[in-house]
Parts: sequence; C-alpha cells; structure tokens
Amino acid sequence: MKYTFAKRIQQLTGSPLRENAKKRQATSQVISFAYGYPSIEAFPMDTLQKISNRLYTQLDPESFLQYGATEGDPVLRRLIAKRLKTMSSIDTTTDPLIVSGSTQAIDLVIKTLCNEGDIVLCEAQTFSGAVNAIKSYGAVAQAVAFDFDSQSMDLVLLEEQLAQDEQHKIKLIYVIPTFQNPLGTSMPLEKRKALYDLACRYDVLILEDDPYGDLLYTGKAIPKIKSFDREGRVIYTGSFSKILAPSTRLGFIAAADPLMEKFGLVKQTADSHTNFYWQVMLAEFMQHYEFDAHVEQLKMLYKKQAMTMLRELATCPSELLTYITPTGGYFICCQLSEKVDPSRFYAYLETHGLAVIHGDIMSVSGVGYETYFRLNFTKPTIEEIVKGCAILTKALYQASRINQRIG
Amino acid sequence: MKYTFAKRIQQLTGSPLRENAKKRQATSQVISFAYGYPSIEAFPMDTLQKISNRLYTQLDPESFLQYGATEGDPVLRRLIAKRLKTMSSIDTTTDPLIVSGSTQAIDLVIKTLCNEGDIVLCEAQTFSGAVNAIKSYGAVAQAVAFDFDSQSMDLVLLEEQLAQDEQHKIKLIYVIPTFQNPLGTSMPLEKRKALYDLACRYDVLILEDDPYGDLLYTGKAIPKIKSFDREGRVIYTGSFSKILAPSTRLGFIAAADPLMEKFGLVKQTADSHTNFYWQVMLAEFMQHYEFDAHVEQLKMLYKKQAMTMLRELATCPSELLTYITPTGGYFICCQLSEKVDPSRFYAYLETHGLAVIHGDIMSVSGVGYETYFRLNFTKPTIEEIVKGCAILTKALYQASRINQRIG
Repeated sequence: MKYTFAKRIQQLTGSPLRENAKKRQATSQVISFAYGYPSIEAFPMDTLQKISNRLYTQLDPESFLQYGATEGDPVLRRLIAKRLKTMSSIDTTTDPLIVSGSTQAIDLVIKTLCNEGDIVLCEAQTFSGAVNAIKSYGAVAQAVAFDFDSQSMDLVLLEEQLAQDEQHKIKLIYVIPTFQNPLGTSMPLEKRKALYDLACRYDVLILEDDPYGDLLYTGKAIPKIKSFDREGRVIYTGSFSKILAPSTRLGFIAAADPLMEKFGLVKQTADSHTNFYWQVMLAEFMQHYEFDAHVEQLKMLYKKQAMTMLRELATCPSELLTYITPTGGYFICCQLSEKVDPSRFYAYLETHGLAVIHGDIMSVSGVGYETYFRLNFTKPTIEEIVKGCAILTKALYQASRINQRIG
Repeated sequence: MKYTFAKRIQQLTGSPLRENAKKRQATSQVISFAYGYPSIEAFPMDTLQKISNRLYTQLDPESFLQYGATEGDPVLRRLIAKRLKTMSSIDTTTDPLIVSGSTQAIDLVIKTLCNEGDIVLCEAQTFSGAVNAIKSYGAVAQAVAFDFDSQSMDLVLLEEQLAQDEQHKIKLIYVIPTFQNPLGTSMPLEKRKALYDLACRYDVLILEDDPYGDLLYTGKAIPKIKSFDREGRVIYTGSFSKILAPSTRLGFIAAADPLMEKFGLVKQTADSHTNFYWQVMLAEFMQHYEFDAHVEQLKMLYKKQAMTMLRELATCPSELLTYITPTGGYFICCQLSEKVDPSRFYAYLETHGLAVIHGDIMSVSGVGYETYFRLNFTKPTIEEIVKGCAILTKALYQASRINQRIG
C-alpha cells in the first residue's frame, strides 16, 4: 500500500552521520575522529557497579523500577539545581526537568514553541540534530554567518535578520556558546551579553545548548548566557552524555516557570518520563561517590588527548590547513586552505582509513562548508590520534594544489 | 515576559492523572486501585542484580554505555522479532524499532502520520496518554462509541464515521484490542477481522496498542490484528513496562518497512535512541535468564489478584454495580447503576481513602463517563484489594438512591 506522511516530517532526511556510521561499521581498521563519543576510558565501571548493587540491595525497588514523576527524580533535580548554582551561577525557581539527553531537550523545546513556518536562527555550522529537530516540526532553521575572529555568530548580521523579521516568525535563537559543535569555539562574554541584549530588544528566546560545558581544559570558564538572564528569556539545556555515559540518555532543561510547565506537559506526552534507574544512579553518584572528582579525571584525560592532537596538527603547514584551538569540549575544527583540493583530500582520508566529519554535514544549509571538517579527540586513543594525524598530514600534501611533497 | 506557545500544544492540558497523583502523595493511608502500575513483587531484583553485574564485569562497556543505534540493540530487536513470531504469529521484515515505552511509540506514530486537523478514531473510553499525544500534534481524537456486548468499538458507527470522511481527514484508528485500558475488554477475533476489513476498505491505518498483551489469565489468546495484516496496514506497539519494569521505558514498534524507516528518522530526532543499558539488560534476560518463566510468574501473581478482586466485587449487589470480567491485563471496569449517585459515591471513596480512576479521565471527550470507573488489581496487595473492595461496597450503599443499608 501507499503511505502518506505528515507534512512536518517531509523535510526530514536520514542523518548523513547515521548513514556514514552504517558504512563505517562495514569497513574495518578505520581510525575515527568522526563521532562525538566519549572515550571507553571515561566509563567509571567500578563505581557504576557499586552504585548499581546498592540500588538492587539497599533501595526500595519502587524508587528506580516503578513509574516515576514526569519531571524526574526530585533528588536528582535538586542536585542538578545546586550544581548549576555553584558551578555556573544559574538560579532556577523550578528545579530542572530531566529529559532523555540534550537531543530530547531540543525536540521538546521546538515542539513547544514553534509553529510550522516559524524560524529558528542557528549558527551556520551547528549540531545537525538540532537542525533536524527544527525541520521535524515544519519550522525553518535559518543560518547566521559565523565570525571566526570573535568566535561568535556575527551579531551585526543577526540583528539584520531580526530587524527584517516583520512577521515575527523568528521564535528562537539556537546557540552552543561553549565549546561549540562542530567549531570548538567559545563565545566571549561581551558577545554573549550582546546576543542576550538583541534577544531582549527583538523579543525572541534563546536556546543555550551546553552539552560540553563541564569540560574546560584551559583558562577560565565564561559565564553562561543563562546566568545573566534577568527576563526568563534563556532556555538552558545540559547533558550527562559526555560526563557520565551517552547510553543513559540523561539531560535536563532549566528555564522560567511558565516554560517549564509546558515542557513538562510535552515531556509527559513524549515518553512519560526518563529512565529512572539511571536518574537514581546519577543522584547516588553525585551524593555519595565524588561525581565531581570523576569529571575532573575526565578533564585530565581529554585535555591530554586534545593537547596531543593539537601538537600533531601543529606540524601541518599552515598554508594548507588552519584550525581553531579549543579551550574545552570534544572538537577541533579545521579548514583547508584554497591550496588544497577538498575532494582529493577527503578521498585520501577515506582510502587510508581516517574518518572525519565534513563541514557540510554539521551545517544548516548542508552545502558550502566542504573546506571545513571536524575532528573529535575524546574517542580515539593517544596512539590513534598520532596515527590519524599522520594520515591527515599526508592527505594534505597529496591533495595540495602546489604539489608539495612530504619532508 | 510573555511567552507564546505553538498552536499544536494549546489543546494540551495537564493530565488529570498527574494532578491526582500530586494530590494523592499529600494524603496518606490511601488504598490505590487507580494507577496502572505493576506490583512491587513483580520486580525480579536478584535476576536484575545478577545481569547488571554481568554487564559491568563481562561485557564491553561500549555495548551498553556508549551511544547506540537509533533503531536499538540488534540482539534485542532480533529477540523481540522472534518472540512476536512465536507467541503471536506476527511476521516482520524489519526487526522492531526499540522506543521509550508505548507512550513514545504512540507519540512517534502520530508525529509521523498526522497533520494538524487530521483525525484519529479512538475507542470512546481509552488511554488518556494516546489522546494527549494526538492533541499535542494538533490532530483530533474522535470517539467511536463502544459496544459492551461485543467488547468492541461499534463497527457500524465506525463505518459511518469512515464513510462520512469525504476529505480523508481520518488517518488512523487507534485501538487497544487486548485487555483494553480502561475497560479490560478483549475484542473477539471476528470483530478484529471486521475492523481490519473496514480499514482496508476506507484506506486508513490501524495503530494496535498492546501493552498488556502478554498477561493472559484465562482462556485462549485472541490473534493480534497485526497477525493477519496482509497489506502492511497495522502498526503494532508493545511494551515491557508491565512485564519487566516501567522505569526502564522499553517498548517497540513493528510495522511495514516504509513506515519503519520514517519512525526511525523521527525517533532519531526525538532522543537519538532508547537507554542501552536496559536494552542490553533485557536482551541478556531473554537469552540467559528465562524471561518467559518470569512472565509466567507475573501471570500467576496477577491472576490471583484479579480473582480476589472479582470475588470481592461479586458481593456487590448487581442492581447497584456492574463490571466487566477481564481475561487478562491490569484492569476491571465498573459501572454504577442509575440507582447510585456518582458524586456521593466518589465523595465517599475519597473520604474513606480509596482511589479509583473516573471514567471521564480515560475518555476521549473527557465528559459523560461519570458512572464508569477503572480498578487496577496489579499494584495493590491482596489485603489492600479486600479492604479497598469493602470501602467500595460501603460507598455503593451509602450513595444508593434507594437508600438501602448494609446487611
């Protein structure tokens, strides 16, 4: 029979990441700098096993196996609220809503706020999952050009787009200010403030997506936009995928009360509540097993991996490749110079078994970013980072239009 | 500031169940026949602890802590496909998609298939979560009257509604044929076949929601509608909330390939994938720890509880109360005769600490079902069932319009 699908999902296509992952499984011996995955070293197996045994032997089964509150485990919600206050000076009147990862957070926010045809402004290169979520409700993801010099979306262009929006179709500015995906950039404080002021002036909301925010390796943390949100205009979403384990699907939303109430209703309809075993596991971890020390260990591990990748990239000739040095997070964004032929470069990587994420994939438009690519440094081992960077270096020379040869 | 929400969520109101739950927490000593929760006895704590230890000590952490495939753990998907084939003669070309409970299954199906203004036909008394999911996408839940004599939605009225739908707004018939919620009824085979034929004739899809299907206590299982779906017209959803643990949020969708592909895309956007620890826990349970024997134990436990409740209800005068004897599942549906004043009856229950679900709550229209109420027999203990039924019996007499007194 012939099926007819809802209009809202007609823009939705298979994530190229997903297709690539299938292809990749088929090939062996590929070094992957592609996916935003944590290291296998990152999972605190002994601690998790201890907590799990504690749950099964000491706790009331009803507390982690029965149906639970849509909003999440009250203990966990309180702990996250305190952590937001202590670490990021974020105050919330309602404790955060627990959701199934940042991905669900974005999905619920778009469902709650955007009618079909509404516009969400995004950094031109951004998380493809957010772009898909926007499309999946028939809303439109509209790119704002990125200003690499200031590590921020171009606020002059942003204001132009806001000013031109006479029909008030723009509902939301989606932004990853800290350790951006795919760029690895962090928006400076004055840009965050200017962005916030623009949102106030043009009466739009900001969705501040911060899945990597805990993972600062160098320098001082930049205040979250949510921390100076005096008007209740910022929806802040965080995740435990990168600091506990992705499979657990634990994230949260912190926002003003009227928004929280609606997000709660929409969450209830979506899946009743997020897995409670893992909510209780995380609450126990935070209360009794030095969760913050665990995060510090992760930061040391990943800082070393980031430094290794940066050291290796430093050996690439800057006339062929430039890159942004991140201060935290998961990614380094590289750009090929015009002296390198992108298709020859990527073909070499594929033939020689190095996976990276092409710029087009992590962009709103899906085209025009072929000279950019994203490298992940958390999943590969130190050895793989060194080997992978050697392949990358060779690819640069092989694809160089000036036909320079190695050493 | 003033917030503007998407049109699609404007019909969405707080689930009365949710509000009631909040109120109920505040009161103590209430016997609850209200919620569709499993018994605390139902959780196989020792087995779960064993499997969990096996995961943390024997398995690759990547297999249950890392990001996983959107469609779910391939091993679990295969096991569920085999179980569907063996137990229900359901064949699928693609193994089921793992989702976060039946609730998410319904949400994804509506998102994928219904435009704003489209109609989903439902049994007049049905799962309120499904009605909310339909509303949350701006679609319309339209009731089809229930024929209690045949334990089926009235198929004559259904056909009238389908025939009148000149604009083809009806996209889906949502039905819980087996151990219906809230009615506890099971649609006979000939009615299932007639429903299927109508769906074919009028070219609409059927969403067969079957969260209780495993829990048959008496008689023979009636074939699922999906088992004779020759046209790929039936979307079948199942759940492990009632036979493993609700907090795990494990459910699945089985449907024709073109539908499965779209559900996968929409699932990816919704939350990437369902918690993998629990997917692997369940797969291990099914492979190595006699999951079906566990389900058999549950059936014995619940059958005893159902029989106790039926025995107690049998002492109520049938001129005041009638009820439907279920052959499985979670619920017994009762109806007050016109000799009982519903408001006095419910007031008595509230004052004396017995919680039930009013018919209005579990209905499409939200009104007109005040003489009906749903009793759950799986969560209360045998002692609570006896005590609760005594309160119920007293309430009947107290609210009787013929002013009959006890004994």
